[in-house]
Amino acid sequence: MTRVDPLITGGHVLTMDEAFTDFADGAVVIRDGKIIQCGAAGYLAARYQADETIDADGGIIMPGLVNGHCHAAMTLFRGYAENVTLDAFLEKLSHAETNYVSPETVYIGAAVACAEMALGGITSFVDMYWYPDETVRAARGLHMSIVAGPVFVAFPGYDDLAEWSMRTGFAPAFAERQRDAAGVFPALAPHGCYTLDEEKLTELAGMAEALDLPVHIHASEAPSEMQLVRDGYGGATPIEVLDRTGLLHRNCQLAHGVHLSDSDIDLIAKAGASVIHNPQSNTKLASGIARVCDLMKAGVPVGLGTDGPSSGNDLDMWKAMRLAANLQSVNSGKPGALSDRDTVALATRFGAKAAGMGEHTGSLEPGKNADVIVVSTKGLHMRPVFNPYAALVYSAGRDDVAHVFASGRHIVKDRVLAWEGFDAVLDQFDCIAKAIALDQKVGQFGV
Amino acid sequence: MTRVDPLITGGHVLTMDEAFTDFADGAVVIRDGKIIQCGAAGYLAARYQADETIDADGGIIMPGLVNGHCHAAMTLFRGYAENVTLDAFLEKLSHAETNYVSPETVYIGAAVACAEMALGGITSFVDMYWYPDETVRAARGLHMSIVAGPVFVAFPGYDDLAEWSMRTGFAPAFAERQRDAAGVFPALAPHGCYTLDEEKLTELAGMAEALDLPVHIHASEAPSEMQLVRDGYGGATPIEVLDRTGLLHRNCQLAHGVHLSDSDIDLIAKAGASVIHNPQSNTKLASGIARVCDLMKAGVPVGLGTDGPSSGNDLDMWKAMRLAANLQSVNSGKPGALSDRDTVALATRFGAKAAGMGEHTGSLEPGKNADVIVVSTKGLHMRPVFNPYAALVYSAGRDDVAHVFASGRHIVKDRVLAWEGFDAVLDQFDCIAKAIALDQKVGQFGV
Repeated sequence: MTRVDPLITGGHVLTMDEAFTDFADGAVVIRDGKIIQCGAAGYLAARYQADETIDADGGIIMPGLVNGHCHAAMTLFRGYAENVTLDAFLEKLSHAETNYVSPETVYIGAAVACAEMALGGITSFVDMYWYPDETVRAARGLHMSIVAGPVFVAFPGYDDLAEWSMRTGFAPAFAERQRDAAGVFPALAPHGCYTLDEEKLTELAGMAEALDLPVHIHASEAPSEMQLVRDGYGGATPIEVLDRTGLLHRNCQLAHGVHLSDSDIDLIAKAGASVIHNPQSNTKLASGIARVCDLMKAGVPVGLGTDGPSSGNDLDMWKAMRLAANLQSVNSGKPGALSDRDTVALATRFGAKAAGMGEHTGSLEPGKNADVIVVSTKGLHMRPVFNPYAALVYSAGRDDVAHVFASGRHIVKDRVLAWEGFDAVLDQFDCIAKAIALDQKVGQFGV
Repeated sequence: MTRVDPLITGGHVLTMDEAFTDFADGAVVIRDGKIIQCGAAGYLAARYQADETIDADGGIIMPGLVNGHCHAAMTLFRGYAENVTLDAFLEKLSHAETNYVSPETVYIGAAVACAEMALGGITSFVDMYWYPDETVRAARGLHMSIVAGPVFVAFPGYDDLAEWSMRTGFAPAFAERQRDAAGVFPALAPHGCYTLDEEKLTELAGMAEALDLPVHIHASEAPSEMQLVRDGYGGATPIEVLDRTGLLHRNCQLAHGVHLSDSDIDLIAKAGASVIHNPQSNTKLASGIARVCDLMKAGVPVGLGTDGPSSGNDLDMWKAMRLAANLQSVNSGKPGALSDRDTVALATRFGAKAAGMGEHTGSLEPGKNADVIVVSTKGLHMRPVFNPYAALVYSAGRDDVAHVFASGRHIVKDRVLAWEGFDAVLDQFDCIAKAIALDQKVGQFGV
């Protein structure tokens, strides 16, 4: 009998592997932060002796969710700019970002975001924000996996890298510093074609190749962006611009991808790039509805994201799943156009692949990171469960997440966050939020 | 000093009255199941001595939510018919309804629905289902207010009223029985123009007038229905059919109203009829996106509903609010086309008016029923609260509902349902659900 770390048992295991293997009365064996085996509970209990046994209490045992696009630290600006389009949103936000973005506030904002995400079953995410080292620090404090990279914009930005050369100098240093850190996947994060010019995009493509880094970039999100890019690049689409500057490649993750022509989709598929769908911000900001089913049919790896909490407004992958499925149905006139099983995959295995973490997380398979959650089916809104995938997409919510393991660590126990020192972080967060609210130009602290 | 029942204090009161009056440090005074007064906490504390003081702990104190369209007992069929359009959904369901609908199962299914709704902050709802006395019994067991009425279809139906004459005989008896019951608003519930013919619709219009009852009917929900009605009524729309049969009047509530022409909207507005918007089922079943903003501009009273838990799939008015707002934004290209304040009103005051309960509930005003909820703002996903309406629409969820008072009774205390005997109901519910799952034709009990 082999000794292992926690054994999670007593539930229905959805491995989310390629065959969508499941075990109705199953268990998951974890050792040293990795998944050793999934299978029938009785068989595994006889074979492994666990340090600790976690009873899923008849719930669903599945991979931790992958949030494919986020600006975590923007929890500080949640609800700050309401009822505006993307361009007005970015403009309104710039005042707050100028005054309140610092390494300290990014850490505090990101830590609260990570806690919110963990409580909602997210164990890994892709982040694009200023001072990425601070967001990495927050994520790793909870043992969450993270893709993060320095932001590039043509204007000074909201960090201390006022000159372009400082920005290009920071990137390799960041990659060097983070490359060997467990659970950290450094990337480059150019903001978008409309906030950078062709020369800079080309330079970044060269840098990504030289440093062998993935690229995470906003692309084809909103009508205003499409217009700006058409005007600035002789009628081209953002995808065409990325293609001709060399950024559209296998390791390129396109956040949003709402406004895509057939030929854009062809270009993305040929390049092997991926798309991260963010239905909550896309609908709220009136950006549009992405062609998720068309992208999947074309073989493009697609993931699902919450976007930042300032535009989203929360970091809830359950709402994102349900909305993604609903939007594809109503937009195509075909219920289940995006099946419930595929919708769960967008938030797990498909999403991990799209984010460049496919080898590392997104399914419960031997050798992968032990990112595992237990979803309770005891909630009245979950009963009965005729089909576990449908229950996850259409009924489950953050309040059903009972346990979360990130890199094998039990970070949410019976719905309670296990993160020492978090109360002090939350106090600081509330202080900063009050300061933002008291600033006349920002708004009123409502409650 | 006047003695009162519970005093709810220590939060931000959103009265949702016509002026959207709010009290940042407010309280609500309740006596004998009615609201006596809302105001500043200090002033009210000095004036009233309460039997019990409920501390809102800095949260939001607001009216209980009004679920404007529901088939509560269908909790038993939640997740039973997935990935189908409305017509296929109804067909697939008929097998289960034939075998499993009885007064006993309707009570059990509705009781679980009421418990789910209460936990999510809903204190009143409109229901359309077989054996309406049983749903009324379940609702009143939790002191929830309810609009309910006998269902009319041209075919035998799933109750014991096999003949049309039995159905028309049942209706006045139901109305007579329920008319004087506290919190019960009897209605007639013809299923729709496509499941009844012109003669029967005309007869029901006469009955509604003779008995002075409101009418709650599905109308203009899905493309298939539009086609059936065009075919059956010489090219007419459902709204035109309702108009010419005399059913479209001040007390007519149209559930769904997705496919409406400008002239349909004119007819509805002139008749003074109302529309209940059900975005969750409309998107999931690919029915379409309703013209909510256009209806509101035309002066039509609009409410918000979850639809039945079989098509919805949950009874979550928070998800419905967020989806309603998101859909109007993305469909119009205007973020905030449906403002966050109006979205909350759809689920409270506007919704109560649309459901014919406007005098009774939907806002915190003296003399109205004491339907009050406390929404916690402690959740990480709620912080910070720059604008309480935006926080309610875009971040809040059923898990934030801390306290619920229905007709002045404290039915949810610190997120726990206070309903004696509910455990036995839940056991019976699980038994029936297992029986449905074991029936080969129905599906597999997943977990």
